[in-house]
Amino acid sequence: PSSQASSQGKHGADEKTQESKNIVVTSEDGITKIVFNRPAKKNAITFQMYQDIILALKSASTDNSAITVFTGTGDYYCSGNDLTNFTSAPNGMEEAARKGAVLLREFVNSFIDFPKPLVAVVNGPAVGISVTLLGLFDAVYASDTATFHTPFSQLGQTSEACSSYTFPKIMGPAKATEMLLFGKKLTAREAWAQGLVSEVFPESTFEKEVWTRLKAYAKLPPNSMRISKELIRKNEKEKLYAVNAEECTILQAKWLSEECVNAIMNFVSRKSKL
Amino acid sequence: PSSQASSQGKHGADEKTQESKNIVVTSEDGITKIVFNRPAKKNAITFQMYQDIILALKSASTDNSAITVFTGTGDYYCSGNDLTNFTSAPNGMEEAARKGAVLLREFVNSFIDFPKPLVAVVNGPAVGISVTLLGLFDAVYASDTATFHTPFSQLGQTSEACSSYTFPKIMGPAKATEMLLFGKKLTAREAWAQGLVSEVFPESTFEKEVWTRLKAYAKLPPNSMRISKELIRKNEKEKLYAVNAEECTILQAKWLSEECVNAIMNFVSRKSKL
Amino acid sequence: PSSQASSQGKHGADEKTQESKNIVVTSEDGITKIVFNRPAKKNAITFQMYQDIILALKSASTDNSAITVFTGTGDYYCSGNDLTNFTSAPNGMEEAARKGAVLLREFVNSFIDFPKPLVAVVNGPAVGISVTLLGLFDAVYASDTATFHTPFSQLGQTSEACSSYTFPKIMGPAKATEMLLFGKKLTAREAWAQGLVSEVFPESTFEKEVWTRLKAYAKLPPNSMRISKELIRKNEKEKLYAVNAEECTILQAKWLSEECVNAIMNFVSRKSKL
Repeated sequence: PSSQASSQGKHGADEKTQESKNIVVTSEDGITKIVFNRPAKKNAITFQMYQDIILALKSASTDNSAITVFTGTGDYYCSGNDLTNFTSAPNGMEEAARKGAVLLREFVNSFIDFPKPLVAVVNGPAVGISVTLLGLFDAVYASDTATFHTPFSQLGQTSEACSSYTFPKIMGPAKATEMLLFGKKLTAREAWAQGLVSEVFPESTFEKEVWTRLKAYAKLPPNSMRISKELIRKNEKEKLYAVNAEECTILQAKWLSEECVNAIMNFVSRKSKL
Repeated sequence: PSSQASSQGKHGADEKTQESKNIVVTSEDGITKIVFNRPAKKNAITFQMYQDIILALKSASTDNSAITVFTGTGDYYCSGNDLTNFTSAPNGMEEAARKGAVLLREFVNSFIDFPKPLVAVVNGPAVGISVTLLGLFDAVYASDTATFHTPFSQLGQTSEACSSYTFPKIMGPAKATEMLLFGKKLTAREAWAQGLVSEVFPESTFEKEVWTRLKAYAKLPPNSMRISKELIRKNEKEKLYAVNAEECTILQAKWLSEECVNAIMNFVSRKSKL
Repeated sequence: PSSQASSQGKHGADEKTQESKNIVVTSEDGITKIVFNRPAKKNAITFQMYQDIILALKSASTDNSAITVFTGTGDYYCSGNDLTNFTSAPNGMEEAARKGAVLLREFVNSFIDFPKPLVAVVNGPAVGISVTLLGLFDAVYASDTATFHTPFSQLGQTSEACSSYTFPKIMGPAKATEMLLFGKKLTAREAWAQGLVSEVFPESTFEKEVWTRLKAYAKLPPNSMRISKELIRKNEKEKLYAVNAEECTILQAKWLSEECVNAIMNFVSRKSKL
């Protein structure tokens, strides 16, 4: 279907086969599915993948599907931002930070603007931006193998994807701070108790139960769902744009700080020694 | 007492006896009680009942009671809007939709404006607007036989009673969407876990425990309670009026859409065949 | 260390020894600790203690610690405002109410403005303003012996410390009202389930587990934590100032009302008869 091509856009359509794509988009049964498909790197998100997702969401917003679903290939849902986006930047950190902030802002806005029900099927551990984005989803189903981890302070960074606004709103400051400032990792049950996750399923029946349910939801009158979502979200859209812009400005400066550069270098060098 | 008469106002005072009233209002022990009393129709709300409730709330806001309580007669708390309000409209759907939107807005505003503690004693299943209104209550006590169901999308409709604002605020978008967009029915325990319900009681002791507690609360200094409620609610009153107005405008259009008319006709015809 | 002196400021530095101070401030391992230290009165807060805490927070905001922690000496965390602040006022209630409102506003603003992670280690029962303040903390750890009680209506008073805004936001109106209007006392587990408390620990291991964790958090990059906190809190800072100002204005009037004076007199006279 046409939506499969859309995730490639002008990038890579000639050089990659479907199987090798890091973001795979399919559409059937009224559901457009966007898959983090880079299991060898725990589905870490490269600059290219951010761009592919922006295009995939643009396409899904006008295709004939009723709802859109994110999930991951393999054991991980998504391990977050690929830190080599910075360390392997061809023109140095400053250029990478500038480009990164522009891209991040556009990426997050494409979630804020998405007009149909947006569902995360969290099949395993979720880290960083794949967690913070969940505050912009309409439903989140998690396997009991999923965990939710935002180690921003540990990496000398700060929160993004509007989580500095959505997380305290969803779970209160006493629990949002443990995640966003102290980097506490949540189990799926904890994330459910705090309102970040809609429902938790046993790993053994997770896929079957969730997709059965989603196929039923995809048959509901699409206009009613879209209008109800718009009613819910329009109350805070301007706020979300502003928070996103500010988080990106602060991150751009933070990425160049000694605190952050040292933390990222340590992280990457630990990884490469394993 | 005088508050018993108020629910009738100019409607029906001559034609009905107390026992046949669909909304019954009584006042004692510092508590004004407003009862959905149409058990043969699972306490579904007619146009007349909306008007009776508006008058009852107006009267209760200035009577000498300290708190006001809603509950239902029989097994149901309330099955929501009576859909025959539309299908039996004497001047057709368009007129009914226009009148319905005006009435709904005034009805919901009378909950936004109510100055004393407002408590729901949910004795059984609650559906539609009787659920969405709970976001405007100050306390909600539920029997463990209660359920909470808002099948708006299923009926080609959208959410009302400010629930597009209050529900995400109370339970986060991941759980509000399951209710408001996907029509998931909650048990009393689930509604409690999500903050919609203050406390759940076993059916066998429900009435006794709740009324004992409410009678004690009704003896607290009324001015302190009223001022504290005003402090809590004034922060969002303007927002609530605006959300209510917008939800009603959207519903008026939705009621005339093919999606909605078909869904209501199917629902009513299924019912009438039973 | 210098922060020990700061809590005395110009008050009492000459007249009291460290041991007799009602607010004790120490700083080590990157943590500034502010202790309610008046166990003979269940750590009730006098006018002097409010002033000492304002100074301690001012000092902690610029010292070299990463996080600041409140806790209590003895069985209680804090029993709230010392009601003899009013009954023993040298120039009468009116003067005490006026001064009290000014002091309360400055006191609460010093929590709104505090720039580093602020943690409560709730070692036992918490009452009144020591509970309502928790909505301004970034993390709250509670022993299972802790309880949370705000009997404002019982005392003819109204809520303070921005709780009329933070509590409904954290726990929804159905649960905030039970606490703030009806004076329901919560167990530690209930407060956790409602998002007011980050985590509950068994009394036997409470101190050991909490301080181990806090010492680890205090080693995280301080700038990242401070900036993340600023991002989270700046979204509502203006709102919090306004709510605080209004709550204080209302309380000042309330303290002089018959409802309140009678309630306080009854409370104090019951206590003195024990």
